[in-house]
Amino acid sequence: MIIDSLIEKIKECNNPSVVGLDTMVSYLPDNEGIKDNYTAGERILEFNKAIIDNIYDIVPAVKAQIACYEMYGLPGIKAFNDTLLYAEKRGMLTIADVKRNDIESSAKAYSNAFLGRNDIGLKRFFKNDFITVNGYFGTDGIKPFVEDCAERNRGIFVLVKTSNPSSDEFQNLTLEDGRKVYEAMADLVSEWGKPLIGKYGYSSVGAVVGATHKEEGEKLRAKMRHTFFLIPGYGFQGGNADMIKGFFDKDGLGGIVNSSRGILLAYKNEKYSNDFTKAARQAAIDMREDLNRVLGR
Amino acid sequence: MIIDSLIEKIKECNNPSVVGLDTMVSYLPDNEGIKDNYTAGERILEFNKAIIDNIYDIVPAVKAQIACYEMYGLPGIKAFNDTLLYAEKRGMLTIADVKRNDIESSAKAYSNAFLGRNDIGLKRFFKNDFITVNGYFGTDGIKPFVEDCAERNRGIFVLVKTSNPSSDEFQNLTLEDGRKVYEAMADLVSEWGKPLIGKYGYSSVGAVVGATHKEEGEKLRAKMRHTFFLIPGYGFQGGNADMIKGFFDKDGLGGIVNSSRGILLAYKNEKYSNDFTKAARQAAIDMREDLNRVLGR
Repeated sequence: MIIDSLIEKIKECNNPSVVGLDTMVSYLPDNEGIKDNYTAGERILEFNKAIIDNIYDIVPAVKAQIACYEMYGLPGIKAFNDTLLYAEKRGMLTIADVKRNDIESSAKAYSNAFLGRNDIGLKRFFKNDFITVNGYFGTDGIKPFVEDCAERNRGIFVLVKTSNPSSDEFQNLTLEDGRKVYEAMADLVSEWGKPLIGKYGYSSVGAVVGATHKEEGEKLRAKMRHTFFLIPGYGFQGGNADMIKGFFDKDGLGGIVNSSRGILLAYKNEKYSNDFTKAARQAAIDMREDLNRVLGR
Repeated sequence: MIIDSLIEKIKECNNPSVVGLDTMVSYLPDNEGIKDNYTAGERILEFNKAIIDNIYDIVPAVKAQIACYEMYGLPGIKAFNDTLLYAEKRGMLTIADVKRNDIESSAKAYSNAFLGRNDIGLKRFFKNDFITVNGYFGTDGIKPFVEDCAERNRGIFVLVKTSNPSSDEFQNLTLEDGRKVYEAMADLVSEWGKPLIGKYGYSSVGAVVGATHKEEGEKLRAKMRHTFFLIPGYGFQGGNADMIKGFFDKDGLGGIVNSSRGILLAYKNEKYSNDFTKAARQAAIDMREDLNRVLGR
Protein backbone atom coordinates (compact mmCIF):
# COMPACT_ATOMS: atom_id res chain seq x y z
CA MET A 1 0.00 0.00 0.00
CA ILE A 2 1.51 3.33 -1.08
CA ILE A 3 0.50 5.08 2.16
CA ASP A 4 2.58 2.52 4.07
CA SER A 5 5.59 3.36 1.89
CA LEU A 6 5.07 7.06 2.61
CA ILE A 7 4.83 6.46 6.35
CA GLU A 8 7.94 4.28 6.30
CA LYS A 9 9.85 6.91 4.36
CA ILE A 10 8.75 9.58 6.86
CA LYS A 11 10.04 7.38 9.70
CA GLU A 12 13.28 6.62 7.88
CA CYS A 13 13.97 10.36 7.37
CA ASN A 14 12.44 11.20 10.74
CA ASN A 15 10.78 14.00 8.84
CA PRO A 16 7.02 14.48 8.26
CA SER A 17 7.51 17.09 5.57
CA VAL A 18 7.29 17.41 1.81
CA VAL A 19 8.99 20.01 -0.34
CA GLY A 20 6.65 21.72 -2.79
CA LEU A 21 8.38 22.27 -6.12
CA ASP A 22 5.89 24.89 -7.25
CA THR A 23 8.62 26.49 -9.30
CA MET A 24 8.07 29.46 -11.59
CA VAL A 25 10.65 31.44 -13.57
CA SER A 26 10.19 34.36 -11.19
CA TYR A 27 11.49 32.13 -8.37
CA LEU A 28 14.79 31.31 -10.11
CA PRO A 29 17.84 33.14 -8.78
CA ASP A 30 19.19 33.92 -12.23
CA ASN A 31 16.22 34.37 -14.53
CA GLU A 32 17.15 37.37 -16.66
CA GLY A 33 17.33 36.16 -20.29
CA ILE A 34 14.46 33.57 -20.02
CA LYS A 35 12.15 34.74 -22.78
CA ASP A 36 10.57 31.59 -24.18
CA ASN A 37 8.70 28.61 -22.76
CA TYR A 38 11.26 26.06 -23.90
CA THR A 39 14.04 27.77 -21.94
CA ALA A 40 11.66 28.30 -19.00
CA GLY A 41 10.96 24.55 -18.85
CA GLU A 42 14.64 23.66 -19.08
CA ARG A 43 15.74 26.10 -16.42
CA ILE A 44 12.96 25.19 -14.01
CA LEU A 45 13.86 21.51 -14.35
CA GLU A 46 17.52 22.30 -13.72
CA PHE A 47 16.57 24.30 -10.58
CA ASN A 48 14.30 21.51 -9.35
CA LYS A 49 16.96 18.86 -9.88
CA ALA A 50 19.46 20.91 -7.87
CA ILE A 51 16.92 21.26 -5.04
CA ILE A 52 16.19 17.52 -5.13
CA ASP A 53 19.93 16.69 -5.11
CA ASN A 54 20.24 18.71 -1.92
CA ILE A 55 17.25 17.36 0.01
CA TYR A 56 16.61 13.77 -1.13
CA ASP A 57 18.50 12.27 1.81
CA ILE A 58 16.56 14.22 4.45
CA VAL A 59 13.06 14.80 2.98
CA PRO A 60 10.73 11.88 2.18
CA ALA A 61 8.71 13.38 -0.67
CA VAL A 62 8.22 16.18 -3.17
CA LYS A 63 4.99 17.75 -4.39
CA ALA A 64 4.73 19.64 -7.67
CA GLN A 65 1.84 22.03 -8.34
CA ILE A 66 1.03 21.69 -12.04
CA ALA A 67 -0.39 25.21 -12.63
CA CYS A 68 3.09 26.68 -12.31
CA TYR A 69 4.20 24.40 -15.15
CA GLU A 70 1.13 24.68 -17.37
CA MET A 71 1.93 28.41 -17.63
CA TYR A 72 4.83 27.45 -19.91
CA GLY A 73 2.83 25.19 -22.20
CA LEU A 74 4.15 21.82 -23.33
CA PRO A 75 7.80 22.48 -22.28
CA GLY A 76 6.48 23.38 -18.83
CA ILE A 77 4.36 20.24 -18.56
CA LYS A 78 7.36 18.18 -19.65
CA ALA A 79 9.45 19.82 -16.89
CA PHE A 80 6.70 18.96 -14.39
CA ASN A 81 6.86 15.32 -15.28
CA ASP A 82 10.64 15.15 -15.56
CA THR A 83 10.88 16.71 -12.10
CA LEU A 84 8.73 13.99 -10.55
CA LEU A 85 10.64 11.28 -12.42
CA TYR A 86 13.94 12.68 -11.17
CA ALA A 87 12.68 12.78 -7.58
CA GLU A 88 11.55 9.18 -7.91
CA LYS A 89 14.98 8.16 -9.21
CA ARG A 90 16.46 9.79 -6.12
CA GLY A 91 14.24 7.57 -3.95
CA MET A 92 11.67 10.17 -2.98
CA LEU A 93 7.89 9.71 -3.04
CA THR A 94 6.05 12.04 -5.38
CA ILE A 95 2.78 13.98 -5.22
CA ALA A 96 1.34 15.54 -8.37
CA ASP A 97 -0.70 18.45 -7.06
CA VAL A 98 -3.24 18.69 -9.87
CA LYS A 99 -6.59 19.05 -8.04
CA ARG A 100 -8.41 17.36 -10.92
CA ASN A 101 -11.87 15.89 -11.14
CA ASP A 102 -15.05 15.61 -13.18
CA ILE A 103 -18.04 13.30 -13.76
CA GLU A 104 -17.27 9.58 -13.78
CA SER A 105 -16.30 9.07 -17.45
CA SER A 106 -13.98 12.09 -17.37
CA ALA A 107 -12.69 11.25 -13.90
CA LYS A 108 -11.72 7.89 -15.39
CA ALA A 109 -9.78 9.75 -18.11
CA TYR A 110 -7.97 11.85 -15.48
CA SER A 111 -7.20 8.71 -13.54
CA ASN A 112 -5.88 7.09 -16.71
CA ALA A 113 -3.63 10.10 -17.24
CA PHE A 114 -2.27 10.35 -13.70
CA LEU A 115 -2.65 6.95 -12.06
CA GLY A 116 -3.53 4.29 -14.58
CA ARG A 117 -3.34 3.36 -18.21
CA ASN A 118 -5.09 4.93 -21.20
CA ASP A 119 -7.60 3.39 -23.61
CA ILE A 120 -4.87 2.26 -26.00
CA GLY A 121 -3.22 0.34 -23.19
CA LEU A 122 -0.33 2.74 -22.62
CA LYS A 123 0.80 3.54 -19.11
CA ARG A 124 -0.16 6.95 -17.74
CA PHE A 125 1.91 9.84 -19.03
CA PHE A 126 2.18 11.60 -15.65
CA LYS A 127 4.43 9.78 -13.20
CA ASN A 128 3.72 10.12 -9.49
CA ASP A 129 2.71 8.15 -6.40
CA PHE A 130 -0.11 10.43 -5.28
CA ILE A 131 -2.31 13.10 -6.82
CA THR A 132 -4.64 15.67 -5.27
CA VAL A 133 -8.31 15.59 -6.35
CA ASN A 134 -11.50 17.59 -5.90
CA GLY A 135 -14.39 15.77 -4.15
CA TYR A 136 -17.24 18.14 -5.14
CA PHE A 137 -18.70 15.58 -7.60
CA GLY A 138 -19.31 12.90 -4.96
CA THR A 139 -18.66 9.16 -5.12
CA ASP A 140 -18.92 8.45 -8.84
CA GLY A 141 -16.23 11.06 -9.54
CA ILE A 142 -13.88 9.45 -7.00
CA LYS A 143 -14.46 5.79 -7.86
CA PRO A 144 -12.17 5.63 -10.91
CA PHE A 145 -9.26 7.05 -8.90
CA VAL A 146 -9.82 4.70 -5.98
CA GLU A 147 -9.97 1.72 -8.35
CA ASP A 148 -6.68 2.69 -9.97
CA CYS A 149 -5.16 3.31 -6.51
CA ALA A 150 -6.10 -0.23 -5.49
CA GLU A 151 -4.95 -1.84 -8.71
CA ARG A 152 -1.72 0.08 -9.22
CA ASN A 153 -0.62 0.99 -5.68
CA ARG A 154 -1.20 4.74 -5.85
CA GLY A 155 -2.87 7.26 -3.57
CA ILE A 156 -4.97 10.41 -3.65
CA PHE A 157 -5.49 13.39 -1.35
CA VAL A 158 -8.98 14.90 -1.57
CA LEU A 159 -9.50 18.64 -0.89
CA VAL A 160 -11.21 18.94 2.50
CA LYS A 161 -10.14 22.17 4.24
CA THR A 162 -7.87 24.30 2.08
CA SER A 163 -5.15 26.60 3.43
CA ASN A 164 -6.21 29.88 1.78
CA PRO A 165 -7.82 32.75 3.72
CA SER A 166 -11.14 32.60 1.78
CA SER A 167 -11.62 28.88 2.39
CA ASP A 168 -14.09 29.66 5.19
CA GLU A 169 -16.60 31.31 2.88
CA PHE A 170 -17.81 28.02 1.49
CA GLN A 171 -16.09 25.27 3.45
CA ASN A 172 -17.13 26.53 6.89
CA LEU A 173 -20.83 26.99 6.20
CA THR A 174 -22.92 25.07 8.76
CA LEU A 175 -25.23 22.25 7.71
CA GLU A 176 -28.59 21.65 9.35
CA ASP A 177 -27.13 18.61 11.12
CA GLY A 178 -24.48 20.80 12.76
CA ARG A 179 -21.55 19.72 10.62
CA LYS A 180 -19.58 22.22 8.60
CA VAL A 181 -19.38 21.76 4.82
CA TYR A 182 -15.73 20.67 5.07
CA GLU A 183 -16.74 18.07 7.69
CA ALA A 184 -19.32 16.65 5.31
CA MET A 185 -16.55 16.35 2.72
CA ALA A 186 -14.36 14.75 5.40
CA ASP A 187 -17.02 12.12 6.10
CA LEU A 188 -17.19 11.24 2.41
CA VAL A 189 -13.40 10.99 2.24
CA SER A 190 -13.31 8.66 5.27
CA GLU A 191 -15.85 6.45 3.55
CA TRP A 192 -13.96 6.47 0.22
CA GLY A 193 -10.78 5.49 2.02
CA LYS A 194 -12.11 2.41 3.81
CA PRO A 195 -11.02 -0.18 1.21
CA LEU A 196 -7.45 1.15 1.15
CA ILE A 197 -6.38 1.19 4.79
CA GLY A 198 -2.80 -0.02 5.20
CA LYS A 199 -0.85 -1.67 7.96
CA TYR A 200 -0.32 1.54 9.98
CA GLY A 201 -4.06 2.24 10.11
CA TYR A 202 -4.03 4.96 7.45
CA SER A 203 -5.68 4.89 4.03
CA SER A 204 -4.16 5.65 0.63
CA VAL A 205 -7.15 7.99 0.21
CA GLY A 206 -5.99 11.01 2.20
CA ALA A 207 -7.22 14.56 2.76
CA VAL A 208 -5.82 18.04 2.11
CA VAL A 209 -6.06 20.00 5.38
CA GLY A 210 -4.47 23.47 5.55
CA ALA A 211 -1.93 24.23 8.30
CA THR A 212 -3.48 27.68 8.62
CA HIS A 213 -6.65 26.29 10.22
CA LYS A 214 -5.70 24.93 13.66
CA GLU A 215 -9.17 24.31 15.02
CA GLU A 216 -10.45 22.62 11.88
CA GLY A 217 -7.36 20.41 11.59
CA GLU A 218 -7.75 19.20 15.17
CA LYS A 219 -11.44 18.46 14.65
CA LEU A 220 -10.63 16.55 11.49
CA ARG A 221 -7.91 14.48 13.17
CA ALA A 222 -10.41 13.41 15.84
CA LYS A 223 -13.01 12.60 13.19
CA MET A 224 -10.85 10.95 10.50
CA ARG A 225 -8.87 8.33 12.35
CA HIS A 226 -7.80 6.46 9.23
CA THR A 227 -7.15 9.45 7.00
CA PHE A 228 -3.65 10.70 6.34
CA PHE A 229 -3.36 14.48 5.88
CA LEU A 230 -1.44 16.43 3.26
CA ILE A 231 -0.94 19.72 5.10
CA PRO A 232 -0.12 22.76 2.94
CA GLY A 233 0.22 26.31 4.25
CA TYR A 234 3.25 25.96 6.56
CA GLY A 235 5.72 28.86 6.51
CA PHE A 236 5.05 31.35 3.74
CA GLN A 237 1.26 31.10 4.14
CA GLY A 238 1.42 31.58 7.90
CA GLY A 239 1.00 28.07 9.32
CA ASN A 240 3.51 27.00 12.00
CA ALA A 241 4.42 23.85 13.92
CA ASP A 242 2.47 24.73 17.05
CA MET A 243 -0.68 25.26 14.99
CA ILE A 244 -0.51 21.79 13.46
CA LYS A 245 0.52 19.65 16.43
CA GLY A 246 -3.08 18.49 16.76
CA PHE A 247 -3.25 17.41 13.11
CA PHE A 248 -1.13 14.39 14.07
CA ASP A 249 -1.92 11.32 16.15
CA LYS A 250 -0.38 10.50 19.54
CA ASP A 251 2.59 8.87 17.82
CA GLY A 252 3.27 12.02 15.81
CA LEU A 253 2.07 10.33 12.62
CA GLY A 254 -0.91 10.95 10.35
CA GLY A 255 0.24 13.86 8.24
CA ILE A 256 2.88 15.32 5.98
CA VAL A 257 3.46 19.07 5.96
CA ASN A 258 4.23 20.91 2.73
CA SER A 259 6.36 23.98 2.32
CA SER A 260 6.97 25.39 -1.14
CA ARG A 261 8.05 29.03 -1.16
CA GLY A 262 9.64 28.68 2.30
CA ILE A 263 12.15 26.24 0.78
CA LEU A 264 12.45 27.39 -2.84
CA LEU A 265 12.86 31.05 -1.92
CA ALA A 266 14.96 30.47 1.24
CA TYR A 267 17.91 31.97 -0.64
CA LYS A 268 16.10 35.33 -0.56
CA ASN A 269 15.82 35.11 3.23
CA GLU A 270 18.77 36.76 4.95
CA LYS A 271 18.73 33.97 7.54
CA TYR A 272 20.07 31.63 4.86
CA SER A 273 22.87 31.37 2.29
CA ASN A 274 22.26 33.14 -1.00
CA ASP A 275 23.18 29.89 -2.75
CA PHE A 276 19.68 28.48 -3.38
CA THR A 277 20.73 24.83 -2.94
CA LYS A 278 22.36 25.43 0.44
CA ALA A 279 19.53 27.68 1.53
CA ALA A 280 16.91 25.10 0.53
CA ARG A 281 18.68 22.31 2.43
CA GLN A 282 19.05 24.39 5.56
CA ALA A 283 15.42 25.57 5.39
CA ALA A 284 14.33 21.93 5.00
CA ILE A 285 16.41 20.95 8.05
CA ASP A 286 14.97 23.82 10.07
CA MET A 287 11.46 22.79 9.08
CA ARG A 288 12.12 19.18 10.11
CA GLU A 289 13.49 20.28 13.49
CA ASP A 290 10.59 22.67 14.01
CA LEU A 291 8.02 19.94 13.29
CA ASN A 292 9.80 17.31 15.36
CA ARG A 293 10.05 19.71 18.30
CA VAL A 294 6.27 19.89 18.65
CA LEU A 295 5.66 16.29 17.61
CA GLY A 296 8.06 15.13 20.34
CA ARG A 297 10.18 12.98 18.02
CA MET B 1 -17.70 41.25 -23.06
CA ILE B 2 -17.16 37.62 -24.10
CA ILE B 3 -20.56 36.53 -22.78
CA ASP B 4 -22.19 39.02 -25.17
CA SER B 5 -20.27 37.45 -28.06
CA LEU B 6 -21.49 34.02 -26.99
CA ILE B 7 -25.10 35.19 -26.76
CA GLU B 8 -24.86 36.87 -30.18
CA LYS B 9 -23.40 33.74 -31.71
CA ILE B 10 -26.20 31.65 -30.17
CA LYS B 11 -28.75 34.02 -31.71
CA GLU B 12 -26.97 34.04 -35.06
CA CYS B 13 -27.02 30.23 -35.20
CA ASN B 14 -30.41 30.12 -33.51
CA ASN B 15 -28.88 27.32 -31.49
CA PRO B 16 -28.22 27.30 -27.72
CA SER B 17 -25.94 24.28 -27.87
CA VAL B 18 -22.26 23.45 -27.68
CA VAL B 19 -20.59 20.33 -29.04
CA GLY B 20 -18.31 18.64 -26.54
CA LEU B 21 -15.17 17.37 -28.23
CA ASP B 22 -14.32 14.99 -25.42
CA THR B 23 -12.64 12.73 -27.91
CA MET B 24 -10.77 9.56 -26.99
CA VAL B 25 -9.20 6.97 -29.28
CA SER B 26 -11.96 4.54 -28.35
CA TYR B 27 -14.49 6.95 -29.90
CA LEU B 28 -12.78 7.04 -33.31
CA PRO B 29 -14.49 4.99 -36.05
CA ASP B 30 -11.24 3.53 -37.32
CA ASN B 31 -8.90 3.17 -34.38
CA GLU B 32 -7.27 -0.20 -34.92
CA GLY B 33 -3.50 0.41 -35.29
CA ILE B 34 -3.29 3.37 -32.86
CA LYS B 35 -0.63 2.17 -30.47
CA ASP B 36 1.27 5.28 -29.41
CA ASN B 37 0.37 8.68 -27.97
CA TYR B 38 1.75 10.62 -30.89
CA THR B 39 -0.56 8.85 -33.35
CA ALA B 40 -3.43 9.11 -30.85
CA GLY B 41 -3.01 12.90 -30.71
CA GLU B 42 -2.83 13.21 -34.49
CA ARG B 43 -5.85 11.05 -35.17
CA ILE B 44 -7.97 12.71 -32.49
CA LEU B 45 -7.16 16.13 -33.92
CA GLU B 46 -8.04 14.92 -37.41
CA PHE B 47 -11.38 13.58 -36.13
CA ASN B 48 -12.13 16.80 -34.25
CA LYS B 49 -11.33 18.94 -37.29
CA ALA B 50 -13.70 16.88 -39.41
CA ILE B 51 -16.44 17.31 -36.80
CA ILE B 52 -15.80 21.06 -36.62
CA ASP B 53 -15.86 21.35 -40.44
CA ASN B 54 -19.31 19.79 -40.38
CA ILE B 55 -20.89 21.82 -37.58
CA TYR B 56 -19.22 25.26 -37.50
CA ASP B 57 -22.00 26.88 -39.54
CA ILE B 58 -24.81 25.66 -37.27
CA VAL B 59 -23.30 25.36 -33.77
CA PRO B 60 -21.99 28.43 -31.89
CA ALA B 61 -19.30 26.83 -29.73
CA VAL B 62 -17.22 23.78 -28.89
CA LYS B 63 -16.09 22.53 -25.50
CA ALA B 64 -13.11 20.23 -25.03
CA GLN B 65 -12.65 18.20 -21.84
CA ILE B 66 -8.91 18.10 -21.18
CA ALA B 67 -8.76 14.79 -19.27
CA CYS B 68 -9.43 12.89 -22.49
CA TYR B 69 -6.36 14.54 -23.99
CA GLU B 70 -4.07 14.38 -20.94
CA MET B 71 -4.39 10.58 -21.21
CA TYR B 72 -2.11 10.76 -24.26
CA GLY B 73 0.54 12.94 -22.65
CA LEU B 74 2.08 15.88 -24.48
CA PRO B 75 0.80 14.87 -27.95
CA GLY B 76 -2.68 14.68 -26.46
CA ILE B 77 -2.41 18.09 -24.81
CA LYS B 78 -1.17 19.52 -28.11
CA ALA B 79 -4.21 18.03 -29.87
CA PHE B 80 -6.46 19.64 -27.23
CA ASN B 81 -5.06 23.05 -27.94
CA ASP B 82 -4.93 22.63 -31.71
CA THR B 83 -8.59 21.57 -31.64
CA LEU B 84 -9.64 24.77 -29.89
CA LEU B 85 -7.47 26.89 -32.21
CA TYR B 86 -9.05 25.23 -35.23
CA ALA B 87 -12.56 25.84 -33.91
CA GLU B 88 -11.66 29.47 -33.32
CA LYS B 89 -10.38 29.79 -36.89
CA ARG B 90 -13.72 28.44 -38.05
CA GLY B 91 -15.46 31.23 -36.15
CA MET B 92 -16.69 29.19 -33.17
CA LEU B 93 -16.41 30.19 -29.52
CA THR B 94 -14.35 27.82 -27.39
CA ILE B 95 -14.64 26.41 -23.88
CA ALA B 96 -11.69 24.62 -22.30
CA ASP B 97 -13.30 22.25 -19.83
CA VAL B 98 -10.46 21.96 -17.34
CA LYS B 99 -12.18 22.36 -13.94
CA ARG B 100 -9.02 23.84 -12.44
CA ASN B 101 -8.45 25.76 -9.24
CA ASP B 102 -6.25 26.19 -6.17
CA ILE B 103 -5.23 28.79 -3.57
CA GLU B 104 -4.71 32.32 -4.88
CA SER B 105 -1.05 32.15 -5.99
CA SER B 106 -1.65 28.85 -7.84
CA ALA B 107 -5.02 30.02 -9.17
CA LYS B 108 -3.11 32.94 -10.66
CA ALA B 109 -0.77 30.44 -12.34
CA TYR B 110 -3.75 28.52 -13.78
CA SER B 111 -5.26 31.77 -14.95
CA ASN B 112 -1.95 32.71 -16.57
CA ALA B 113 -1.93 29.35 -18.36
CA PHE B 114 -5.52 29.43 -19.60
CA LEU B 115 -6.65 33.06 -19.68
CA GLY B 116 -3.74 35.42 -19.24
CA ARG B 117 -0.03 35.77 -19.65
CA ASN B 118 2.78 34.05 -17.76
CA ASP B 119 5.47 35.56 -15.54
CA ILE B 120 7.89 35.93 -18.46
CA GLY B 121 5.30 37.98 -20.32
CA LEU B 122 4.28 35.29 -22.82
CA LYS B 123 0.65 34.86 -23.75
CA ARG B 124 -1.14 31.88 -22.26
CA PHE B 125 -0.37 28.55 -23.92
CA PHE B 126 -3.96 27.29 -23.85
CA LYS B 127 -6.21 29.11 -26.29
CA ASN B 128 -9.92 29.42 -25.47
CA ASP B 129 -12.64 31.95 -24.70
CA PHE B 130 -13.95 30.29 -21.54
CA ILE B 131 -12.72 27.76 -19.00
CA THR B 132 -14.52 25.80 -16.29
CA VAL B 133 -13.29 26.24 -12.70
CA ASN B 134 -13.88 24.81 -9.24
CA GLY B 135 -15.23 27.27 -6.62
CA TYR B 136 -14.47 25.20 -3.47
CA PHE B 137 -11.61 27.55 -2.46
CA GLY B 138 -13.82 30.66 -2.20
CA THR B 139 -13.15 34.19 -3.38
CA ASP B 140 -9.36 34.39 -3.32
CA GLY B 141 -9.15 31.35 -5.59
CA ILE B 142 -11.53 32.95 -8.10
CA LYS B 143 -10.15 36.49 -8.08
CA PRO B 144 -7.20 35.89 -10.44
CA PHE B 145 -9.52 34.37 -13.06
CA VAL B 146 -12.05 37.19 -12.79
CA GLU B 147 -9.28 39.77 -13.14
CA ASP B 148 -7.96 38.11 -16.28
CA CYS B 149 -11.52 37.80 -17.62
CA ALA B 150 -11.99 41.55 -17.18
CA GLU B 151 -8.63 42.46 -18.62
CA ARG B 152 -8.54 40.06 -21.53
CA ASN B 153 -12.18 39.53 -22.42
CA ARG B 154 -12.53 35.93 -21.31
CA GLY B 155 -15.08 34.03 -19.25
CA ILE B 156 -15.35 31.23 -16.70
CA PHE B 157 -18.03 28.74 -15.70
CA VAL B 158 -17.89 27.71 -12.04
CA LEU B 159 -19.06 24.23 -10.95
CA VAL B 160 -22.39 24.67 -9.15
CA LYS B 161 -24.60 21.62 -9.70
CA THR B 162 -22.87 18.89 -11.68
CA SER B 163 -24.64 16.46 -14.00
CA ASN B 164 -23.42 13.17 -12.50
CA PRO B 165 -25.68 10.86 -10.45
CA SER B 166 -23.62 11.20 -7.24
CA SER B 167 -23.67 14.99 -7.28
CA ASP B 168 -26.47 15.00 -4.68
CA GLU B 169 -24.28 13.39 -2.00
CA PHE B 170 -22.40 16.58 -1.30
CA GLN B 171 -24.01 19.32 -3.38
CA ASN B 172 -27.56 18.71 -2.09
CA LEU B 173 -26.80 18.69 1.63
CA THR B 174 -28.95 21.24 3.47
CA LEU B 175 -27.42 24.17 5.32
CA GLU B 176 -28.81 25.49 8.60
CA ASP B 177 -30.20 28.52 6.73
CA GLY B 178 -32.24 26.22 4.48
CA ARG B 179 -30.10 26.57 1.37
CA LYS B 180 -28.52 23.55 -0.26
CA VAL B 181 -24.74 23.41 -0.60
CA TYR B 182 -24.99 24.01 -4.38
CA GLU B 183 -27.17 27.07 -3.69
CA ALA B 184 -24.50 28.48 -1.40
CA MET B 185 -22.02 28.00 -4.23
CA ALA B 186 -24.53 29.66 -6.58
CA ASP B 187 -24.74 32.71 -4.32
CA LEU B 188 -20.95 33.05 -4.36
CA VAL B 189 -20.91 32.73 -8.16
CA SER B 190 -23.58 35.45 -8.52
CA GLU B 191 -21.46 37.72 -6.38
CA TRP B 192 -18.25 36.93 -8.31
CA GLY B 193 -20.02 37.70 -11.57
CA LYS B 194 -21.29 41.18 -10.67
CA PRO B 195 -18.40 43.16 -12.17
CA LEU B 196 -18.68 41.35 -15.50
CA ILE B 197 -22.34 41.68 -16.49
CA GLY B 198 -22.69 42.43 -20.19
CA LYS B 199 -25.29 44.16 -22.29
CA TYR B 200 -27.74 41.27 -22.31
CA GLY B 201 -27.81 41.14 -18.52
CA TYR B 202 -25.58 38.06 -18.20
CA SER B 203 -22.13 37.87 -16.65
CA SER B 204 -18.93 36.41 -18.11
CA VAL B 205 -18.74 34.47 -14.81
CA GLY B 206 -21.19 31.64 -15.49
CA ALA B 207 -22.19 28.43 -13.74
CA VAL B 208 -22.10 24.74 -14.62
CA VAL B 209 -25.60 23.32 -14.02
CA GLY B 210 -26.33 19.74 -15.09
CA ALA B 211 -29.27 19.04 -17.43
CA THR B 212 -30.00 15.93 -15.39
CA HIS B 213 -31.26 17.96 -12.41
CA LYS B 214 -34.50 19.66 -13.48
CA GLU B 215 -35.61 20.97 -10.12
CA GLU B 216 -32.21 22.36 -9.15
CA GLY B 217 -31.74 24.03 -12.53
CA GLU B 218 -35.08 25.79 -12.26
CA LYS B 219 -34.33 26.97 -8.73
CA LEU B 220 -30.96 28.27 -9.88
CA ARG B 221 -32.44 30.16 -12.84
CA ALA B 222 -34.82 31.95 -10.45
CA LYS B 223 -31.97 32.70 -8.06
CA MET B 224 -29.18 33.62 -10.50
CA ARG B 225 -30.72 36.17 -12.81
CA HIS B 226 -27.41 37.40 -14.21
CA THR B 227 -25.65 34.05 -14.47
CA PHE B 228 -25.32 32.23 -17.76
CA PHE B 229 -25.41 28.42 -17.49
CA LEU B 230 -23.19 25.86 -19.16
CA ILE B 231 -25.49 22.84 -19.13
CA PRO B 232 -23.84 19.42 -19.54
CA GLY B 233 -25.64 16.11 -19.33
CA TYR B 234 -28.00 16.35 -22.32
CA GLY B 235 -28.46 13.17 -24.34
CA PHE B 236 -26.05 10.43 -23.37
CA GLN B 237 -26.25 11.24 -19.66
CA GLY B 238 -30.04 11.33 -19.64
CA GLY B 239 -30.92 15.02 -19.74
CA ASN B 240 -33.54 16.10 -22.31
CA ALA B 241 -35.03 19.33 -23.64
CA ASP B 242 -38.16 19.20 -21.51
CA MET B 243 -36.07 18.84 -18.36
CA ILE B 244 -34.07 21.99 -19.07
CA LYS B 245 -36.73 24.35 -20.34
CA GLY B 246 -36.77 26.06 -16.95
CA PHE B 247 -32.98 26.60 -17.01
CA PHE B 248 -33.58 29.41 -19.54
CA ASP B 249 -35.18 32.83 -19.17
CA LYS B 250 -38.49 33.90 -20.74
CA ASP B 251 -36.66 34.83 -23.95
CA GLY B 252 -35.17 31.36 -24.22
CA LEU B 253 -31.70 32.70 -23.34
CA GLY B 254 -29.42 32.21 -20.36
CA GLY B 255 -27.83 28.88 -21.10
CA ILE B 256 -25.91 26.73 -23.54
CA VAL B 257 -26.43 22.98 -23.57
CA ASN B 258 -23.54 20.61 -24.12
CA SER B 259 -23.65 17.24 -25.80
CA SER B 260 -20.47 15.26 -26.28
CA ARG B 261 -21.02 11.56 -26.80
CA GLY B 262 -24.45 12.18 -28.35
CA ILE B 263 -22.70 13.98 -31.23
CA LEU B 264 -19.30 12.28 -31.43
CA LEU B 265 -20.77 8.79 -31.27
CA ALA B 266 -23.89 9.50 -33.36
CA TYR B 267 -22.35 7.34 -36.10
CA LYS B 268 -22.84 4.32 -33.83
CA ASN B 269 -26.55 5.12 -33.49
CA GLU B 270 -28.62 3.32 -36.12
CA LYS B 271 -30.77 6.44 -36.43
CA TYR B 272 -27.85 8.16 -38.18
CA SER B 273 -25.39 7.63 -41.02
CA ASN B 274 -22.35 5.51 -40.25
CA ASP B 275 -20.20 8.32 -41.65
CA PHE B 276 -19.23 10.08 -38.42
CA THR B 277 -19.21 13.58 -39.98
CA LYS B 278 -22.70 13.25 -41.45
CA ALA B 279 -23.97 11.62 -38.28
CA ALA B 280 -22.50 14.38 -36.08
CA ARG B 281 -24.05 17.12 -38.22
CA GLN B 282 -27.46 15.49 -38.22
CA ALA B 283 -27.31 14.85 -34.46
CA ALA B 284 -26.36 18.50 -33.92
CA ILE B 285 -29.32 19.61 -36.05
CA ASP B 286 -31.66 17.29 -34.16
CA MET B 287 -30.40 18.66 -30.85
CA ARG B 288 -30.92 22.23 -32.03
CA GLU B 289 -34.48 21.45 -33.13
CA ASP B 290 -35.20 19.61 -29.90
CA LEU B 291 -34.00 22.55 -27.77
CA ASN B 292 -35.76 25.17 -29.89
CA ARG B 293 -39.00 23.22 -29.71
CA VAL B 294 -39.21 23.63 -25.96
CA LEU B 295 -37.66 27.10 -25.90
CA GLY B 296 -40.29 28.27 -28.39
CA ARG B 297 -37.80 29.76 -30.82
